[in-house]
Amino acid sequence: MQLKAGIIGAAGYAGAELVRMLLGHPQITELHLSSVSFEGEPIEHAYPNFLGNTGKINGRLKKAEAVIEAADVVFASLPHGVGETFAKSCVEKSKPFIDLSADFRFGPDESTFAAWYGKGYQYPELRQCSVYGLPELNRDAVKRLAASGTVIIGNPGCYPTAATLGAMPALAHGLAGDGTIIIDAASGITGGGREPARAYHYPECADNVSPYKVGSHRHTPEISRNFAGISAAIRPIIFTPHLVPVNRGILATIYIPLTRPPTDTPLTALKTVSRPPTQETNAKAKDIHTLYTEFYKNEPFVRILPFGGVASTNHVRQSNYCDISVHLDQTGSTLIIASAIDNMVKGAAGQAVQNMNIIFGFEESAGLTAIPALF
Amino acid sequence: MQLKAGIIGAAGYAGAELVRMLLGHPQITELHLSSVSFEGEPIEHAYPNFLGNTGKINGRLKKAEAVIEAADVVFASLPHGVGETFAKSCVEKSKPFIDLSADFRFGPDESTFAAWYGKGYQYPELRQCSVYGLPELNRDAVKRLAASGTVIIGNPGCYPTAATLGAMPALAHGLAGDGTIIIDAASGITGGGREPARAYHYPECADNVSPYKVGSHRHTPEISRNFAGISAAIRPIIFTPHLVPVNRGILATIYIPLTRPPTDTPLTALKTVSRPPTQETNAKAKDIHTLYTEFYKNEPFVRILPFGGVASTNHVRQSNYCDISVHLDQTGSTLIIASAIDNMVKGAAGQAVQNMNIIFGFEESAGLTAIPALF
Amino acid sequence: MQLKAGIIGAAGYAGAELVRMLLGHPQITELHLSSVSFEGEPIEHAYPNFLGNTGKINGRLKKAEAVIEAADVVFASLPHGVGETFAKSCVEKSKPFIDLSADFRFGPDESTFAAWYGKGYQYPELRQCSVYGLPELNRDAVKRLAASGTVIIGNPGCYPTAATLGAMPALAHGLAGDGTIIIDAASGITGGGREPARAYHYPECADNVSPYKVGSHRHTPEISRNFAGISAAIRPIIFTPHLVPVNRGILATIYIPLTRPPTDTPLTALKTVSRPPTQETNAKAKDIHTLYTEFYKNEPFVRILPFGGVASTNHVRQSNYCDISVHLDQTGSTLIIASAIDNMVKGAAGQAVQNMNIIFGFEESAGLTAIPALF
Amino acid sequence: MQLKAGIIGAAGYAGAELVRMLLGHPQITELHLSSVSFEGEPIEHAYPNFLGNTGKINGRLKKAEAVIEAADVVFASLPHGVGETFAKSCVEKSKPFIDLSADFRFGPDESTFAAWYGKGYQYPELRQCSVYGLPELNRDAVKRLAASGTVIIGNPGCYPTAATLGAMPALAHGLAGDGTIIIDAASGITGGGREPARAYHYPECADNVSPYKVGSHRHTPEISRNFAGISAAIRPIIFTPHLVPVNRGILATIYIPLTRPPTDTPLTALKTVSRPPTQETNAKAKDIHTLYTEFYKNEPFVRILPFGGVASTNHVRQSNYCDISVHLDQTGSTLIIASAIDNMVKGAAGQAVQNMNIIFGFEESAGLTAIPALF
Repeated sequence: MQLKAGIIGAAGYAGAELVRMLLGHPQITELHLSSVSFEGEPIEHAYPNFLGNTGKINGRLKKAEAVIEAADVVFASLPHGVGETFAKSCVEKSKPFIDLSADFRFGPDESTFAAWYGKGYQYPELRQCSVYGLPELNRDAVKRLAASGTVIIGNPGCYPTAATLGAMPALAHGLAGDGTIIIDAASGITGGGREPARAYHYPECADNVSPYKVGSHRHTPEISRNFAGISAAIRPIIFTPHLVPVNRGILATIYIPLTRPPTDTPLTALKTVSRPPTQETNAKAKDIHTLYTEFYKNEPFVRILPFGGVASTNHVRQSNYCDISVHLDQTGSTLIIASAIDNMVKGAAGQAVQNMNIIFGFEESAGLTAIPALF
Repeated sequence: MQLKAGIIGAAGYAGAELVRMLLGHPQITELHLSSVSFEGEPIEHAYPNFLGNTGKINGRLKKAEAVIEAADVVFASLPHGVGETFAKSCVEKSKPFIDLSADFRFGPDESTFAAWYGKGYQYPELRQCSVYGLPELNRDAVKRLAASGTVIIGNPGCYPTAATLGAMPALAHGLAGDGTIIIDAASGITGGGREPARAYHYPECADNVSPYKVGSHRHTPEISRNFAGISAAIRPIIFTPHLVPVNRGILATIYIPLTRPPTDTPLTALKTVSRPPTQETNAKAKDIHTLYTEFYKNEPFVRILPFGGVASTNHVRQSNYCDISVHLDQTGSTLIIASAIDNMVKGAAGQAVQNMNIIFGFEESAGLTAIPALF
Repeated sequence: MQLKAGIIGAAGYAGAELVRMLLGHPQITELHLSSVSFEGEPIEHAYPNFLGNTGKINGRLKKAEAVIEAADVVFASLPHGVGETFAKSCVEKSKPFIDLSADFRFGPDESTFAAWYGKGYQYPELRQCSVYGLPELNRDAVKRLAASGTVIIGNPGCYPTAATLGAMPALAHGLAGDGTIIIDAASGITGGGREPARAYHYPECADNVSPYKVGSHRHTPEISRNFAGISAAIRPIIFTPHLVPVNRGILATIYIPLTRPPTDTPLTALKTVSRPPTQETNAKAKDIHTLYTEFYKNEPFVRILPFGGVASTNHVRQSNYCDISVHLDQTGSTLIIASAIDNMVKGAAGQAVQNMNIIFGFEESAGLTAIPALF
Repeated sequence: MQLKAGIIGAAGYAGAELVRMLLGHPQITELHLSSVSFEGEPIEHAYPNFLGNTGKINGRLKKAEAVIEAADVVFASLPHGVGETFAKSCVEKSKPFIDLSADFRFGPDESTFAAWYGKGYQYPELRQCSVYGLPELNRDAVKRLAASGTVIIGNPGCYPTAATLGAMPALAHGLAGDGTIIIDAASGITGGGREPARAYHYPECADNVSPYKVGSHRHTPEISRNFAGISAAIRPIIFTPHLVPVNRGILATIYIPLTRPPTDTPLTALKTVSRPPTQETNAKAKDIHTLYTEFYKNEPFVRILPFGGVASTNHVRQSNYCDISVHLDQTGSTLIIASAIDNMVKGAAGQAVQNMNIIFGFEESAGLTAIPALF
C-alpha cells in the first residue's frame, strides 16, 4: 500500500522532522506540505538540509486546505487550539488526522484541557473519534478506531511520553504506593520550537541549566491522567521540567514510592543517618528490572537497559527509542526510573509516524529504523 | 593582616580555581603551590591562562611539605583519603588547614565515612579540631575553633552545599513533614576533575544528559547528615545527580513534602486528575518565599530570587553566590526549591576562601567580589 | 549480491560509524568485528546505542585474523602504520581492503609518507594494487582496480576530502593562479577519536576555539598532492586546522587566488583602502558558481548551494554530503570556497562505504541515504 | 579621582558588560544607565545576575539625555548611526564620549564609512575631536585629545582588534610582503547581540560551524585601514568571519606573506609536493616570535605566548587580554598569527574601559584585573 501524506505546519521543528521521516518512509510516495510563514516557497528555503532530497515533495509549501485535499493521511504540527477545523475537515473526508498539538490528548475531558490551556474545544464532538496515541498504552484502541474508518490521533506530549513509558510497568504491576510520584525532567532546546526567543537565544541557554514553569507546566495533567489510567487510581504527581543545553532529547527521572516500606529505614536506625545500598536492596532492584524487561519484551521501541546501565539521551538521539534504566534509592523504598527519548522523534514526529503505521497496518517500525549514533 | 597561602594539589581544577582566587585576594601576599604531576614546573605550564599573573606565586610547583613549611594557611585539594598527614602536620604547626576532600566532612562519625568511602580515618583524633565549613550553617563554630588556635576545615561537597542551603530555611522552620526529601541535581563537567576519562570526553558528554550513581552517590550521607543537624530529626533523603553539558554549575531541585497536607488534594477530588495552581497555593508560596528571604537576609552569598524568578546556573557563574528560587507544586503540598551555585566557587574554592576569611577575621567577601556575567 | 563485511578496529569512532552504516546497508548480511580493547565483548558494551540492532553482527568482538577469514570485504580503522599485515592478508585472499588510515593514501610515494608520518612502508609492493579512494576524483581508477580482482583503498583523510572537493572545479578549470592556496579549516572533536585526552576533555574544549599543529599537520601533503594531481601543477598550499566545540563536522574555508587579477584593485586606487563588492564582482562570482554547479552535476554526494547560500556543518550532519558554497573576496581577486562535510561520514566511514559500493558495483548511495537533520 | 559614568544602551550585551566592569572599577562611584527597551525598570530585570550588586547604580534605567546630564564620562553601546546626537551633546558639555559603534571609527573618511554602512555622517565636524581608540596603536593620540578637553573615542570593532594586534608587529617591522593578507576568524555567538534571531537560536547554531558575510563584512575596511596606517602601504586584505558555538571569544588566524620568499619553495622542488617544516624554518619562526615579544613587552594586555603555544579563546575568557601565538607555514614563506580575545572585553567593553582609564590618567588596568579562568 502506498500513501500520499500531508503535513500542516511543515516549517516548524516537529513538522520538518516529519518531512525528514516521511521522505524516508517506504510506503509514502508523495508529500504535500503547508506552512503559513513559508507559503509559496520550496521547503529548502526553510531547511537547506533537505537540498537534493525533495523528489517526493509535491510542489512548494501550500495552504492547509490544499494539503488536506491531496493527502491520504494528514499530520498537523500546529500551536494548541488552532487545528480543529482541519481535523473536522479530515474526519468528513474519512482521512486519518494525526495531531501533534494537545487538542486531542484529553478526549472528552474538556474541563481539564480548558483549565490548563485556557480555552475550550471548538468541536467537542470530534473527541468521539479521537484517541490518545501512545502505542505502548493504546495500540489496540488506535487499531479499533482506524478500523471504524475515522480516526484522530492525539499524539502525546514529549515529557508525558518519557514519563508514562518509564512509570507504566511499575504502575501496572501495582508497585507504586500512595505517595506522590515525582517526575524531574530535562529537555533539549528544540523543545521550544523554531521561533527565536530570549529563552532559546544561544548565549542565554548555552552553558546553563535551570527549571521552568515549576508547578505549572501543561504536561502535568497529561502525565497525571496517563498514570491514573494505568493504575486505576488517582495519585498525586509533581512534574518539574528543566532546560539543558542539548539540541534534542528528554531525560525524565521518575521517583515512585514503593508500596511496602523497607523494614530497616534510616528512620528506625536512630544512630545512622544514611548507609549505602545493601545487597538486599540490589537484589530487589534486579527483580524490578526483570519485571520491566518482561513488560516491554514485545515493544519494538522500548529498550530496558541491562542492569547497571543508565539511560542517556545520546544513546537514543535521532531514533524512536525510549531507553529506560531501573534503580532504587539507597534504602530500597523508592523506585527511580531514568527514561530517555529524543523529544523530536519518540516525543513528536517519530511517534506520529508510528501511529500512522498502526493505522494503516504497516510494519510498526516502517520509516523508523534509524540506528542512533553515540555522537 | 597579610598572609602567605599554600595550596596542595594546585594543578587540579579546584586547586587552579583556588590559585585564581587567591591571586586576586587583597590579604594574600604570597602563594606556594604543590602538585605531584607538575612538580618543578611553573603553574602556567598547566594553566596558560595564568600567564602574566603569577607575580604572587613563589617559584615553581613544589612538594607539599615545602608548601606547609612556607605558608600561613594551607588549602588541600586532593583525592579523598590521602591528605591526613598534611592536616596533622598543619595542626602541629598551628596552621589552619582547609581541606576540599571529604576526609573532614563527617567529624567523629567515622563509621558513616567508612561505609561510603571504603576506608577509615588515619588519625581519628584530628576530628577534635575539625569542623564542617558551611559558613551559613556553622560560621560560629568555625570562629570558635579558629580562636582556639587549631582548625581544620572540612570544606563541603558541591552538591551538599547547594542542597543544604536550599533546604535549610524550610528545615529550620519546621516546614518539612515526615516524607522523603528528594534532591534531583545536575552538575557541569568540571565536577569530574581534570583527569581525562571517557565520561568527560567531549563527544561522549556534549549534547547529552544522563544520571549517574543513582542511589549510591557519596554526597548522600553528607546531605542527610546536614539535614538531620538542622531539623534535629533524621529524615530519609534521596539524591540523584545528573551530568549536563555545561562547564560550571550545579542546579539542585529539592522536593520537600510540607507538614500539613492541603485539604483539597487531587486524591479527594475524584473526578479531577489535576488542576493548575490556585491563588491560595500561590499565596502560600509567597509566604514561604518571604520566610526564605528573611532567613538569609544577612548572608552575603545567598540570594533569594524575587518571587517568580528561577534559579539558573548562568546567573551565578564564576561567583560565590548561591541563588535560590521558591516554588510549590500545583497542589501546594510540596515545596520545590531550585538552588544554583558555581560548583567550582561556592561548591569548592570560593567556599574555601570564605572559610579562610572567617578564620582570620577578614571581610567575609574578601577576594570573592566577582560579579557574575550572564554569558 | 549479498556480502559479509568485516571491520578491524570497530570500537573506535570511525569503526563504530562503519558498524552503524553497514548495519543499515541493504547488501550487507553479516558483520564481523574486531577490537583489541573490547575483544570478547559484544559491541553494545562499547556502544550502548546499538542495543537491539545487532542482529547482523556475528558474535562478539574477535581477533582481526578471524574477521579477515570470515568477511568478503574488510574495512580497517586503525592508527597509521599498523595495518599493512592485514592488507597483505586480504590481498592474498583477493578480498578488497578499505583502509581508513593514511597508510595507502600516498601510493608509491613512500618518501612523502615517511617525511610526515615518521616511518616507511612495511610492504611497499602493496601500493601496486592500492588507490586513493576519493570517488569524485578517482572513481574510474577504483573500478579498474576492483575489476582486476585485487584492491586496496586508501580512504582519504577528513580535511583532504573537504579541501579537495572544494577546490577541484577551480583547479580543473584552470582558475587558480600561481599564488599560495590557503585552507583554513575547523573540525569537530570526534576527529580526535575516542581515546580520552586532555585536548578533548570537555571542560578544556567546550566554549573554546583554537588552531593546532599550525604549519605541520599531516593532512598538508595529502591535500597538496591532490591539488597537484588535479591541475598538473605543483602549487604551494597552507593548511591550518582548528578545533571547535561541535561533535561532528569539518568546515574548510579555501582561498584560491585567481589567475587574472582584477584591474581595479585597492592597490591601484590609492585614496581608497577598501570598498564593498561591486556588481561586477558579484557577476563574476555567479559565473564561477555556475561552473561549480556544472562540474558536480552528476555527483550524488556533492551539493553546490544556491548562490548566496553558505556551507554549514549542521546541514550535512550524519550524511555523506559535501556542501559547497562559492564566494569572492570584495575585490574579486580571490575565490573563497566554503566546504562542509561530516568528518565521520564523508570524511571517514561514509566515504569508505561509498568506495565499497563502487568496488562491488552497488548503487553508489546504497546504505548512504540518510537525510541530514538541521538540528 | 572619582567619576560618575553613564552608559547609553545598557541593556545590550556590550552595555551589560560595561555595567559589570564599571561596578568593579575603583574610580567609578556612580553609574547612570539608559535603555529604550527597559526604561523605567531596574537593571536586574534585564540581567538577574546583577542582583545584590547594584549599589553604585543610580536608580532605574532612564533616558539617554538624563544619563549624559548626570555623568562625567559617557559610554554608548548603540546600533551604528544613531548615537551622533549624544556625541554632540557630550562634546558641548566637554564630557568624554566613548562610542562602541562604528560611527567614529573612520574619522574624517566619511566615504569609506558610507560605502560600507549605507549612510553618511550626521555631524561630520565631530570627527575633529574623535580618535580610533586602539590603545596599543593610538594611546598617545587618545592622551593628546583628552588633554585638549574634548574627546570622542571610536572604540574598535572586535574582529579589527584581534586582527590589528595580531598583525601589527609584522607590519610595523616591514615583514609583510606585497601579497594579500588573509584574516580567517571565528566569533562566539554573543557577537550577534542580545536580540533573538534565527541565526543565534540555540538549535540553529549549537553544534554548527559556518562562515557568514563572506567578502562583505563591515569590519573589512576597518582592518584594512588599520593595516595601512601601521605600514604606510595599502595592501589588499581578505577577511572571512565564522560563527562557532561558544559564548565569548574571537580567534583570528592571520596569514601574512613574508617579504623574501624562501629559496627552496615547493615550486622549485619539482619532485616534491610538500615537506614538514625544517629546522631552518623553525629558527626563522623563533626569530619572529622574539620580535613580537619585544614589540609588546610594555603592553599590559597583550600576551605573546611562549614559542610552541597556541592562542585559545578559553585562555582569555572574561579578561582584557589579547593572546598571540606566532607560527610559520611549512615552507617558511607565510607568517601565521593566531590572535585570541574575548569579544565582549578586549573586543568591546574592556577596551572601552581601557580608553577611559587613559583619558583620565588612571592606571590603565584599573577595573580590568580579572584573571581568566581556563574553564
